[in-house]
Amino acid sequence: MTRLISFRRPDGQPSFGRLDGQTVHDLGAAGGPAFLKDVIDQDLAALPATGTFALADVRLLPVVPNPTKILCVGLNYATHVAETGREQKEFPAIFTRWADTLIADGEPLVRPRETERFDYEGELAVVIGKGGRRIARADAMAHVAGFSIFNDGSARDWQRHNIQFTPGKNYPATGAFGPALVLADEIDDLASQRVQTRLNGELVQDQPISDMIWDIPFVIEYCSTFTPLEPGDVIVTGTPGGVGDKRKPPLYMKAGDVCEVSVGVIGTLTNPVIDEI
Amino acid sequence: MTRLISFRRPDGQPSFGRLDGQTVHDLGAAGGPAFLKDVIDQDLAALPATGTFALADVRLLPVVPNPTKILCVGLNYATHVAETGREQKEFPAIFTRWADTLIADGEPLVRPRETERFDYEGELAVVIGKGGRRIARADAMAHVAGFSIFNDGSARDWQRHNIQFTPGKNYPATGAFGPALVLADEIDDLASQRVQTRLNGELVQDQPISDMIWDIPFVIEYCSTFTPLEPGDVIVTGTPGGVGDKRKPPLYMKAGDVCEVSVGVIGTLTNPVIDEI
Repeated sequence: MTRLISFRRPDGQPSFGRLDGQTVHDLGAAGGPAFLKDVIDQDLAALPATGTFALADVRLLPVVPNPTKILCVGLNYATHVAETGREQKEFPAIFTRWADTLIADGEPLVRPRETERFDYEGELAVVIGKGGRRIARADAMAHVAGFSIFNDGSARDWQRHNIQFTPGKNYPATGAFGPALVLADEIDDLASQRVQTRLNGELVQDQPISDMIWDIPFVIEYCSTFTPLEPGDVIVTGTPGGVGDKRKPPLYMKAGDVCEVSVGVIGTLTNPVIDEI
Repeated sequence: MTRLISFRRPDGQPSFGRLDGQTVHDLGAAGGPAFLKDVIDQDLAALPATGTFALADVRLLPVVPNPTKILCVGLNYATHVAETGREQKEFPAIFTRWADTLIADGEPLVRPRETERFDYEGELAVVIGKGGRRIARADAMAHVAGFSIFNDGSARDWQRHNIQFTPGKNYPATGAFGPALVLADEIDDLASQRVQTRLNGELVQDQPISDMIWDIPFVIEYCSTFTPLEPGDVIVTGTPGGVGDKRKPPLYMKAGDVCEVSVGVIGTLTNPVIDEI
Protein backbone atom coordinates (compact mmCIF):
# COMPACT_ATOMS: atom_id res chain seq x y z
CA MET A 1 0.00 0.00 0.00
CA THR A 2 1.47 3.32 -1.11
CA ARG A 3 1.73 5.86 1.71
CA LEU A 4 2.61 9.43 0.81
CA ILE A 5 3.70 11.99 3.37
CA SER A 6 4.58 15.66 3.42
CA PHE A 7 7.63 16.64 5.42
CA ARG A 8 10.48 19.04 5.94
CA ARG A 9 13.87 17.78 4.84
CA PRO A 10 16.72 17.98 7.34
CA ASP A 11 17.65 21.33 5.74
CA GLY A 12 14.16 22.68 6.52
CA GLN A 13 12.85 22.68 2.94
CA PRO A 14 9.31 21.34 2.46
CA SER A 15 8.90 18.25 0.33
CA PHE A 16 6.79 15.13 -0.02
CA GLY A 17 7.58 11.50 -0.45
CA ARG A 18 6.71 7.85 -0.19
CA LEU A 19 7.03 6.14 3.15
CA ASP A 20 8.56 2.65 3.13
CA GLY A 21 8.94 1.41 6.69
CA GLN A 22 11.43 3.80 8.29
CA THR A 23 12.66 5.13 4.93
CA VAL A 24 11.29 8.18 3.14
CA HIS A 25 11.72 8.23 -0.63
CA ASP A 26 11.80 11.93 -1.48
CA LEU A 27 9.55 12.73 -4.45
CA GLY A 28 10.21 16.47 -4.54
CA ALA A 29 12.85 17.62 -7.00
CA ALA A 30 15.38 20.41 -6.52
CA GLY A 31 13.72 23.42 -8.13
CA GLY A 32 10.64 21.28 -8.79
CA PRO A 33 7.35 20.87 -6.95
CA ALA A 34 7.76 21.27 -3.20
CA PHE A 35 4.27 20.29 -2.10
CA LEU A 36 2.20 17.15 -2.56
CA LYS A 37 -0.61 19.40 -3.83
CA ASP A 38 1.54 20.32 -6.85
CA VAL A 39 1.53 16.75 -8.19
CA ILE A 40 -1.61 15.32 -6.64
CA ASP A 41 -3.47 15.08 -9.93
CA GLN A 42 -0.71 12.83 -11.33
CA ASP A 43 -0.16 9.07 -11.06
CA LEU A 44 1.09 9.16 -7.48
CA ALA A 45 2.25 5.54 -7.40
CA ALA A 46 4.60 6.22 -10.33
CA LEU A 47 6.42 9.37 -9.19
CA PRO A 48 10.23 8.87 -9.34
CA ALA A 49 12.25 9.28 -6.14
CA THR A 50 15.00 11.88 -6.05
CA GLY A 51 16.64 10.72 -2.84
CA THR A 52 15.99 9.04 0.50
CA PHE A 53 15.93 10.04 4.15
CA ALA A 54 15.52 8.13 7.35
CA LEU A 55 12.05 8.87 8.72
CA ALA A 56 13.68 9.98 11.97
CA ASP A 57 15.57 12.72 10.11
CA VAL A 58 12.58 14.50 8.61
CA ARG A 59 9.80 16.47 10.25
CA LEU A 60 6.29 15.45 9.23
CA LEU A 61 3.93 18.09 7.89
CA PRO A 62 0.16 17.81 7.55
CA VAL A 63 -0.50 15.44 4.61
CA VAL A 64 -1.46 18.43 2.49
CA PRO A 65 0.03 21.40 4.35
CA ASN A 66 -1.52 24.06 2.14
CA PRO A 67 -4.95 23.10 0.78
CA THR A 68 -6.90 25.95 -0.79
CA LYS A 69 -10.15 24.67 0.69
CA ILE A 70 -10.93 22.48 3.68
CA LEU A 71 -14.60 21.53 3.73
CA CYS A 72 -15.88 19.80 6.84
CA VAL A 73 -19.06 17.77 6.93
CA GLY A 74 -21.01 18.15 10.14
CA LEU A 75 -23.56 15.68 11.44
CA ASN A 76 -22.75 12.81 9.08
CA TYR A 77 -23.28 9.90 11.50
CA ALA A 78 -26.72 9.29 13.01
CA THR A 79 -25.19 8.59 16.42
CA HIS A 80 -23.62 12.06 16.44
CA VAL A 81 -26.77 13.75 15.15
CA ALA A 82 -28.67 12.06 17.99
CA GLU A 83 -26.20 13.02 20.72
CA THR A 84 -26.28 16.69 19.62
CA GLY A 85 -30.08 16.64 19.79
CA ARG A 86 -30.25 18.05 16.26
CA GLU A 87 -32.71 17.23 13.53
CA GLN A 88 -31.49 15.19 10.58
CA LYS A 89 -31.77 17.24 7.41
CA GLU A 90 -31.94 16.35 3.74
CA PHE A 91 -28.47 17.78 3.06
CA PRO A 92 -25.25 17.79 5.09
CA ALA A 93 -23.92 20.69 7.16
CA ILE A 94 -20.74 22.10 5.59
CA PHE A 95 -18.38 24.30 7.57
CA THR A 96 -14.82 25.36 6.84
CA ARG A 97 -11.33 25.46 8.29
CA TRP A 98 -8.36 27.48 7.16
CA ALA A 99 -5.04 25.78 6.46
CA ASP A 100 -3.34 27.59 9.34
CA THR A 101 -5.25 25.34 11.74
CA LEU A 102 -3.46 22.19 10.51
CA ILE A 103 -0.83 20.16 12.33
CA ALA A 104 0.95 16.92 11.44
CA ASP A 105 0.89 13.51 13.04
CA GLY A 106 2.92 13.68 16.23
CA GLU A 107 2.61 17.43 16.67
CA PRO A 108 0.67 18.71 19.67
CA LEU A 109 -2.97 19.69 19.54
CA VAL A 110 -2.98 23.04 21.32
CA ARG A 111 -5.86 23.74 23.71
CA PRO A 112 -6.69 27.44 23.20
CA ARG A 113 -6.42 29.45 26.36
CA GLU A 114 -10.02 30.67 25.95
CA THR A 115 -11.62 27.23 26.26
CA GLU A 116 -11.90 24.48 28.83
CA ARG A 117 -14.05 22.51 26.39
CA PHE A 118 -11.45 21.29 23.87
CA ASP A 119 -12.89 18.22 22.20
CA TYR A 120 -11.75 15.52 19.76
CA GLU A 121 -13.51 14.46 16.55
CA GLY A 122 -11.99 11.51 14.69
CA GLU A 123 -12.75 11.57 10.97
CA LEU A 124 -11.84 10.19 7.56
CA ALA A 125 -10.29 12.86 5.28
CA VAL A 126 -10.74 12.73 1.51
CA VAL A 127 -8.07 14.48 -0.57
CA ILE A 128 -9.09 15.68 -4.03
CA GLY A 129 -6.74 14.70 -6.87
CA LYS A 130 -8.53 15.99 -9.93
CA GLY A 131 -10.46 19.21 -9.50
CA GLY A 132 -13.87 19.92 -10.88
CA ARG A 133 -17.22 21.60 -10.64
CA ARG A 134 -20.58 19.87 -10.45
CA ILE A 135 -18.92 16.46 -10.32
CA ALA A 136 -21.55 13.77 -10.82
CA ARG A 137 -21.89 11.17 -8.10
CA ALA A 138 -20.94 8.43 -10.56
CA ASP A 139 -17.67 10.21 -11.42
CA ALA A 140 -16.80 11.35 -7.91
CA MET A 141 -14.33 8.66 -6.87
CA ALA A 142 -12.21 9.38 -9.96
CA HIS A 143 -11.57 12.82 -8.45
CA VAL A 144 -10.17 11.42 -5.20
CA ALA A 145 -6.40 11.08 -4.84
CA GLY A 146 -6.63 9.23 -1.57
CA PHE A 147 -7.61 9.12 2.06
CA SER A 148 -6.09 10.20 5.32
CA ILE A 149 -7.15 10.82 8.90
CA PHE A 150 -8.28 14.00 10.63
CA ASN A 151 -8.84 15.05 14.23
CA ASP A 152 -11.19 18.03 14.04
CA GLY A 153 -10.27 19.54 17.40
CA SER A 154 -13.11 21.78 18.55
CA ALA A 155 -13.47 24.55 21.12
CA ARG A 156 -17.05 23.64 21.94
CA ASP A 157 -18.00 26.91 23.65
CA TRP A 158 -16.64 29.00 20.78
CA GLN A 159 -18.35 26.69 18.30
CA ARG A 160 -21.69 27.48 19.96
CA HIS A 161 -21.27 31.21 20.62
CA ASN A 162 -23.74 31.64 17.81
CA ILE A 163 -25.22 29.50 15.02
CA GLN A 164 -22.08 29.21 12.86
CA PHE A 165 -19.23 26.87 13.88
CA THR A 166 -16.29 28.93 12.47
CA PRO A 167 -14.87 30.28 15.75
CA GLY A 168 -14.73 26.88 17.46
CA LYS A 169 -13.19 25.15 14.44
CA ASN A 170 -10.42 27.53 13.44
CA TYR A 171 -8.07 27.97 16.35
CA PRO A 172 -4.47 27.37 15.20
CA ALA A 173 -3.06 23.87 15.78
CA THR A 174 -6.44 22.23 16.35
CA GLY A 175 -6.76 20.27 13.10
CA ALA A 176 -4.52 17.19 13.06
CA PHE A 177 -4.13 15.71 9.58
CA GLY A 178 -2.07 12.63 8.79
CA PRO A 179 0.06 10.69 9.04
CA ALA A 180 -0.05 9.67 5.35
CA LEU A 181 -2.15 9.70 2.22
CA VAL A 182 -3.26 6.23 1.18
CA LEU A 183 -4.10 6.04 -2.51
CA ALA A 184 -7.79 5.65 -3.23
CA ASP A 185 -7.39 2.85 -5.74
CA GLU A 186 -5.42 0.74 -3.25
CA ILE A 187 -8.26 0.51 -0.72
CA ASP A 188 -10.48 -2.46 -1.49
CA ASP A 189 -13.13 -1.98 1.11
CA LEU A 190 -13.35 1.57 2.36
CA ALA A 191 -16.87 1.14 3.72
CA SER A 192 -15.89 -1.42 6.32
CA GLN A 193 -12.94 0.55 7.73
CA ARG A 194 -13.75 1.79 11.22
CA VAL A 195 -13.18 5.33 12.52
CA GLN A 196 -11.85 4.78 16.02
CA THR A 197 -10.78 7.51 18.42
CA ARG A 198 -8.87 6.77 21.60
CA LEU A 199 -8.17 9.31 24.32
CA ASN A 200 -5.37 8.10 26.57
CA GLY A 201 -6.02 4.61 25.25
CA GLU A 202 -9.75 4.56 25.98
CA LEU A 203 -11.91 3.88 22.93
CA VAL A 204 -14.35 6.80 22.69
CA GLN A 205 -15.54 6.66 19.05
CA ASP A 206 -15.91 3.53 16.91
CA GLN A 207 -18.01 3.26 13.77
CA PRO A 208 -17.48 2.05 10.22
CA ILE A 209 -17.37 4.42 7.24
CA SER A 210 -20.51 2.65 6.01
CA ASP A 211 -22.47 4.38 8.80
CA MET A 212 -22.11 7.77 7.09
CA ILE A 213 -25.47 9.36 6.32
CA TRP A 214 -24.08 11.05 3.17
CA ASP A 215 -21.47 8.90 1.49
CA ILE A 216 -18.31 10.21 -0.13
CA PRO A 217 -19.62 10.37 -3.74
CA PHE A 218 -22.67 12.31 -2.56
CA VAL A 219 -20.56 14.75 -0.53
CA ILE A 220 -18.26 15.39 -3.50
CA GLU A 221 -21.23 15.95 -5.78
CA TYR A 222 -22.87 18.26 -3.26
CA CYS A 223 -19.81 20.37 -2.42
CA SER A 224 -18.66 20.69 -6.01
CA THR A 225 -22.08 22.01 -6.94
CA PHE A 226 -21.57 25.24 -5.01
CA THR A 227 -17.79 25.54 -5.12
CA PRO A 228 -15.08 24.42 -7.56
CA LEU A 229 -12.83 21.76 -6.05
CA GLU A 230 -9.11 22.00 -6.73
CA PRO A 231 -6.34 19.41 -6.53
CA GLY A 232 -5.29 19.15 -2.89
CA ASP A 233 -8.58 20.33 -1.43
CA VAL A 234 -9.66 18.35 1.59
CA ILE A 235 -13.10 17.11 2.58
CA VAL A 236 -13.29 16.03 6.21
CA THR A 237 -16.21 13.66 6.28
CA GLY A 238 -17.74 13.99 9.73
CA THR A 239 -17.39 12.40 13.12
CA PRO A 240 -19.18 9.43 14.69
CA GLY A 241 -21.01 9.62 17.99
CA GLY A 242 -19.02 9.65 21.19
CA VAL A 243 -17.61 13.18 21.25
CA GLY A 244 -16.43 14.30 24.67
CA ASP A 245 -18.79 17.25 24.96
CA LYS A 246 -21.87 15.00 24.91
CA ARG A 247 -20.62 12.45 27.45
CA LYS A 248 -21.92 12.38 30.98
CA PRO A 249 -19.75 13.56 32.56
CA PRO A 250 -18.09 15.43 29.66
CA LEU A 251 -14.62 14.31 28.61
CA TYR A 252 -12.39 17.06 27.27
CA MET A 253 -8.79 17.01 26.03
CA LYS A 254 -6.27 18.51 28.42
CA ALA A 255 -2.53 18.96 28.61
CA GLY A 256 -0.71 15.64 28.88
CA ASP A 257 -3.40 13.67 27.06
CA VAL A 258 -2.73 11.67 23.90
CA CYS A 259 -5.44 11.41 21.26
CA GLU A 260 -5.27 8.73 18.57
CA VAL A 261 -7.58 8.40 15.58
CA SER A 262 -7.45 5.21 13.50
CA VAL A 263 -9.26 4.52 10.25
CA GLY A 264 -8.65 0.81 9.63
CA VAL A 265 -5.93 0.12 7.06
CA ILE A 266 -5.45 3.85 6.47
CA GLY A 267 -3.48 4.07 9.70
CA THR A 268 -3.38 5.94 12.98
CA LEU A 269 -3.00 9.65 13.67
CA THR A 270 -1.48 10.33 17.08
CA ASN A 271 -1.22 13.71 18.78
CA PRO A 272 -0.34 14.77 22.30
CA VAL A 273 -2.30 17.66 23.80
CA ILE A 274 -0.72 20.76 25.29
CA ASP A 275 -2.03 24.00 26.72
CA GLU A 276 -1.41 27.20 24.84
CA ILE A 277 1.28 29.12 26.69
CA MET B 1 -10.23 61.18 -0.04
CA THR B 2 -7.78 58.52 -1.24
CA ARG B 3 -9.49 55.74 -3.20
CA LEU B 4 -7.45 52.66 -4.03
CA ILE B 5 -8.55 50.11 -6.61
CA SER B 6 -7.30 46.79 -7.90
CA PHE B 7 -7.40 46.30 -11.65
CA ARG B 8 -5.98 44.61 -14.71
CA ARG B 9 -3.82 46.81 -16.90
CA PRO B 10 -4.64 46.96 -20.61
CA ASP B 11 -2.02 44.18 -21.10
CA GLY B 12 -3.94 41.93 -18.66
CA GLN B 13 -1.47 42.12 -15.78
CA PRO B 14 -2.97 42.62 -12.33
CA SER B 15 -2.06 45.78 -10.47
CA PHE B 16 -3.49 48.31 -8.05
CA GLY B 17 -3.63 52.07 -7.99
CA ARG B 18 -5.14 55.33 -6.84
CA LEU B 19 -8.27 56.56 -8.53
CA ASP B 20 -8.39 60.28 -9.32
CA GLY B 21 -11.58 61.07 -11.24
CA GLN B 22 -11.26 59.13 -14.50
CA THR B 23 -7.51 58.64 -14.09
CA VAL B 24 -5.85 55.63 -12.47
CA HIS B 25 -2.40 56.22 -10.98
CA ASP B 26 -0.73 52.82 -11.17
CA LEU B 27 0.99 51.93 -7.89
CA GLY B 28 2.26 48.51 -8.95
CA ALA B 29 5.85 48.40 -10.17
CA ALA B 30 7.26 46.27 -12.99
CA GLY B 31 8.62 43.24 -11.19
CA GLY B 32 7.27 44.63 -7.93
CA PRO B 33 4.11 43.95 -5.95
CA ALA B 34 1.17 43.11 -8.19
CA PHE B 35 -1.58 43.06 -5.59
CA LEU B 36 -2.86 45.63 -3.12
CA LYS B 37 -2.50 42.97 -0.41
CA ASP B 38 1.28 43.03 -0.92
CA VAL B 39 1.56 46.64 0.27
CA ILE B 40 -1.53 47.05 2.41
CA ASP B 41 0.40 47.30 5.65
CA GLN B 42 2.30 50.31 4.29
CA ASP B 43 1.41 54.01 4.23
CA LEU B 44 -1.08 53.72 1.38
CA ALA B 45 -1.50 57.46 0.86
CA ALA B 46 2.23 57.80 0.20
CA LEU B 47 2.85 55.08 -2.41
CA PRO B 48 4.55 56.49 -5.52
CA ALA B 49 2.82 56.14 -8.88
CA THR B 50 4.62 54.28 -11.67
CA GLY B 51 2.31 55.34 -14.49
CA THR B 52 -1.23 56.33 -15.34
CA PHE B 53 -4.15 54.82 -17.23
CA ALA B 54 -7.56 56.08 -18.18
CA LEU B 55 -10.13 54.36 -15.97
CA ALA B 56 -11.92 53.22 -19.12
CA ASP B 57 -8.80 51.31 -20.24
CA VAL B 58 -8.43 49.09 -17.15
CA ARG B 59 -10.62 46.30 -15.86
CA LEU B 60 -11.58 46.57 -12.20
CA LEU B 61 -10.86 43.65 -9.89
CA PRO B 62 -12.33 43.07 -6.44
CA VAL B 63 -10.68 45.60 -4.09
CA VAL B 64 -8.56 42.79 -2.65
CA PRO B 65 -8.78 40.03 -5.27
CA ASN B 66 -6.92 37.42 -3.22
CA PRO B 67 -7.54 37.71 0.51
CA THR B 68 -6.39 34.72 2.56
CA LYS B 69 -9.44 34.96 4.81
CA ILE B 70 -12.87 36.43 4.31
CA LEU B 71 -14.81 36.45 7.58
CA CYS B 72 -18.47 37.36 7.39
CA VAL B 73 -20.47 38.53 10.37
CA GLY B 74 -24.03 37.23 10.40
CA LEU B 75 -26.89 38.79 12.32
CA ASN B 76 -25.19 42.10 13.19
CA TYR B 77 -28.22 44.39 12.88
CA ALA B 78 -31.22 43.94 15.19
CA THR B 79 -33.63 44.49 12.28
CA HIS B 80 -32.07 41.54 10.43
CA VAL B 81 -31.99 39.33 13.53
CA ALA B 82 -35.69 40.09 14.01
CA GLU B 83 -36.70 39.37 10.40
CA THR B 84 -34.91 35.99 10.48
CA GLY B 85 -36.75 35.08 13.68
CA ARG B 86 -33.47 34.19 15.34
CA GLU B 87 -32.44 34.78 18.92
CA GLN B 88 -29.86 37.46 19.63
CA LYS B 89 -26.77 35.89 21.14
CA GLU B 90 -23.92 37.23 23.22
CA PHE B 91 -21.42 36.81 20.36
CA PRO B 92 -21.69 37.29 16.58
CA ALA B 93 -22.16 34.51 14.03
CA ILE B 94 -19.06 34.16 11.85
CA PHE B 95 -19.15 32.33 8.54
CA THR B 96 -16.65 32.30 5.69
CA ARG B 97 -16.31 32.83 1.97
CA TRP B 98 -13.51 31.77 -0.33
CA ALA B 99 -11.82 34.31 -2.58
CA ASP B 100 -13.09 32.57 -5.72
CA THR B 101 -16.56 33.93 -4.93
CA LEU B 102 -15.45 37.56 -5.42
CA ILE B 103 -16.31 39.89 -8.29
CA ALA B 104 -15.52 43.55 -8.91
CA ASP B 105 -17.74 46.59 -9.15
CA GLY B 106 -19.53 46.46 -12.50
CA GLU B 107 -19.15 42.71 -12.97
CA PRO B 108 -22.29 40.59 -12.97
CA LEU B 109 -23.58 38.79 -9.92
CA VAL B 110 -24.31 35.31 -11.28
CA ARG B 111 -27.49 33.60 -10.08
CA PRO B 112 -26.54 29.93 -9.64
CA ARG B 113 -28.64 27.60 -11.71
CA GLU B 114 -29.61 25.62 -8.59
CA THR B 115 -31.45 28.49 -6.88
CA GLU B 116 -34.45 30.71 -7.52
CA ARG B 117 -33.79 32.42 -4.19
CA PHE B 118 -30.75 34.58 -5.01
CA ASP B 119 -30.70 37.43 -2.51
CA TYR B 120 -28.75 40.65 -1.91
CA GLU B 121 -27.04 41.69 1.34
CA GLY B 122 -25.48 45.15 1.39
CA GLU B 123 -22.60 45.43 3.85
CA LEU B 124 -19.60 47.46 4.95
CA ALA B 125 -16.30 45.61 4.35
CA VAL B 126 -13.29 46.15 6.61
CA VAL B 127 -9.86 45.42 5.10
CA ILE B 128 -7.07 44.52 7.50
CA GLY B 129 -3.82 46.43 7.00
CA LYS B 130 -1.69 45.21 9.87
CA GLY B 131 -2.15 41.57 10.85
CA GLY B 132 -2.31 40.27 14.37
CA ARG B 133 -3.65 37.81 16.87
CA ARG B 134 -5.74 38.66 19.93
CA ILE B 135 -5.92 42.29 18.92
CA ALA B 136 -7.33 44.31 21.81
CA ARG B 137 -10.45 46.33 21.14
CA ALA B 138 -8.57 49.53 21.91
CA ASP B 139 -5.93 48.74 19.29
CA ALA B 140 -8.27 47.34 16.65
CA MET B 141 -8.69 50.37 14.40
CA ALA B 142 -4.92 50.65 13.99
CA HIS B 143 -5.08 47.27 12.21
CA VAL B 144 -7.59 48.50 9.60
CA ALA B 145 -6.27 49.70 6.24
CA GLY B 146 -9.63 50.94 5.10
CA PHE B 147 -13.22 50.29 4.17
CA SER B 148 -15.07 49.18 1.11
CA ILE B 149 -18.49 47.80 0.17
CA PHE B 150 -19.71 44.23 -0.17
CA ASN B 151 -22.79 42.57 -1.61
CA ASP B 152 -22.96 39.17 0.08
CA GLY B 153 -25.08 37.47 -2.58
CA SER B 154 -26.80 34.46 -1.02
CA ALA B 155 -28.50 31.36 -2.38
CA ARG B 156 -31.05 31.24 0.44
CA ASP B 157 -32.15 27.63 -0.08
CA TRP B 158 -28.56 26.36 -0.13
CA GLN B 159 -27.77 28.53 2.90
CA ARG B 160 -30.52 26.72 4.83
CA HIS B 161 -30.00 23.16 3.63
CA ASN B 162 -28.58 22.54 7.06
CA ILE B 163 -27.37 24.63 10.00
CA GLN B 164 -24.17 25.98 8.41
CA PHE B 165 -24.32 28.77 5.80
CA THR B 166 -21.29 27.72 3.68
CA PRO B 167 -23.16 26.29 0.64
CA GLY B 168 -25.37 29.34 0.17
CA LYS B 169 -22.51 31.81 0.58
CA ASN B 170 -19.82 30.33 -1.65
CA TYR B 171 -21.14 30.06 -5.16
CA PRO B 172 -18.69 31.68 -7.61
CA ALA B 173 -19.39 35.29 -8.60
CA THR B 174 -21.79 35.97 -5.74
CA GLY B 175 -19.61 38.24 -3.59
CA ALA B 176 -19.32 41.75 -5.05
CA PHE B 177 -16.52 43.75 -3.45
CA GLY B 178 -15.64 47.33 -4.37
CA PRO B 179 -15.37 49.65 -6.06
CA ALA B 180 -12.51 51.15 -4.02
CA LEU B 181 -10.75 51.05 -0.68
CA VAL B 182 -11.19 54.25 1.29
CA LEU B 183 -8.45 54.75 3.85
CA ALA B 184 -9.59 54.33 7.43
CA ASP B 185 -7.93 57.47 8.73
CA GLU B 186 -9.68 59.61 6.13
CA ILE B 187 -13.19 58.80 7.35
CA ASP B 188 -14.26 61.21 10.06
CA ASP B 189 -17.59 59.75 11.00
CA LEU B 190 -17.90 56.11 10.06
CA ALA B 191 -20.77 55.45 12.48
CA SER B 192 -23.17 57.79 10.72
CA GLN B 193 -22.57 56.41 7.20
CA ARG B 194 -25.64 54.53 6.01
CA VAL B 195 -25.63 51.10 4.36
CA GLN B 196 -28.19 51.45 1.57
CA THR B 197 -29.09 48.74 -0.91
CA ARG B 198 -31.14 49.47 -4.01
CA LEU B 199 -32.54 46.81 -6.32
CA ASN B 200 -33.50 48.34 -9.66
CA GLY B 201 -33.51 51.72 -7.95
CA GLU B 202 -35.82 50.74 -5.12
CA LEU B 203 -34.35 51.32 -1.64
CA VAL B 204 -34.54 47.95 0.16
CA GLN B 205 -31.99 48.31 2.98
CA ASP B 206 -31.08 51.52 4.80
CA GLN B 207 -29.38 51.72 8.19
CA PRO B 208 -26.40 53.52 9.67
CA ILE B 209 -23.22 51.68 10.69
CA SER B 210 -24.01 52.80 14.25
CA ASP B 211 -26.87 50.27 14.30
CA MET B 212 -24.41 47.36 14.35
CA ILE B 213 -24.88 45.12 17.37
CA TRP B 214 -21.15 44.30 17.49
CA ASP B 215 -19.04 47.24 16.38
CA ILE B 216 -15.89 46.97 14.29
CA PRO B 217 -13.35 47.03 17.15
CA PHE B 218 -15.27 44.25 18.91
CA VAL B 219 -15.48 42.14 15.75
CA ILE B 220 -11.73 42.50 15.15
CA GLU B 221 -10.98 41.57 18.75
CA TYR B 222 -13.34 38.59 18.58
CA CYS B 223 -12.16 37.20 15.24
CA SER B 224 -8.47 37.69 15.98
CA THR B 225 -8.91 35.73 19.19
CA PHE B 226 -9.55 32.47 17.34
CA THR B 227 -7.67 33.11 14.09
CA PRO B 228 -4.63 35.19 13.13
CA LEU B 229 -5.56 38.07 10.83
CA GLU B 230 -3.23 38.84 7.93
CA PRO B 231 -2.78 41.95 5.82
CA GLY B 232 -5.49 41.95 3.17
CA ASP B 233 -7.94 39.80 5.11
CA VAL B 234 -11.51 41.00 4.84
CA ILE B 235 -14.21 41.23 7.48
CA VAL B 236 -17.68 41.69 6.02
CA THR B 237 -19.62 43.27 8.84
CA GLY B 238 -23.20 42.08 8.40
CA THR B 239 -26.34 43.22 6.66
CA PRO B 240 -29.22 45.40 7.85
CA GLY B 241 -32.83 44.29 7.77
CA GLY B 242 -34.69 44.30 4.49
CA VAL B 243 -33.24 41.24 2.74
CA GLY B 244 -35.39 39.97 -0.12
CA ASP B 245 -35.98 36.53 1.35
CA LYS B 246 -37.87 37.94 4.34
CA ARG B 247 -40.11 40.32 2.39
CA LYS B 248 -43.76 39.57 1.76
CA PRO B 249 -43.84 38.74 -1.07
CA PRO B 250 -40.15 37.77 -1.33
CA LEU B 251 -37.94 39.84 -3.63
CA TYR B 252 -35.11 37.92 -5.27
CA MET B 253 -32.43 39.02 -7.73
CA LYS B 254 -33.01 37.85 -11.30
CA ALA B 255 -31.34 38.30 -14.67
CA GLY B 256 -31.56 41.89 -15.89
CA ASP B 257 -31.70 43.41 -12.39
CA VAL B 258 -29.16 45.93 -11.13
CA CYS B 259 -28.17 45.89 -7.47
CA GLU B 260 -26.43 48.88 -5.89
CA VAL B 261 -24.99 49.07 -2.40
CA SER B 262 -23.90 52.45 -1.04
CA VAL B 263 -22.12 53.15 2.22
CA GLY B 264 -22.20 56.94 2.55
CA VAL B 265 -18.93 58.64 1.58
CA ILE B 266 -17.30 55.26 0.91
CA GLY B 267 -19.14 55.06 -2.39
CA THR B 268 -21.46 52.84 -4.38
CA LEU B 269 -20.97 49.25 -5.57
CA THR B 270 -23.07 48.50 -8.66
CA ASN B 271 -23.59 45.06 -10.20
CA PRO B 272 -25.96 43.75 -12.82
CA VAL B 273 -27.44 40.29 -12.31
CA ILE B 274 -27.25 37.49 -14.85
CA ASP B 275 -28.29 33.86 -14.88
CA GLU B 276 -25.61 31.21 -14.93
CA ILE B 277 -25.53 29.77 -18.43
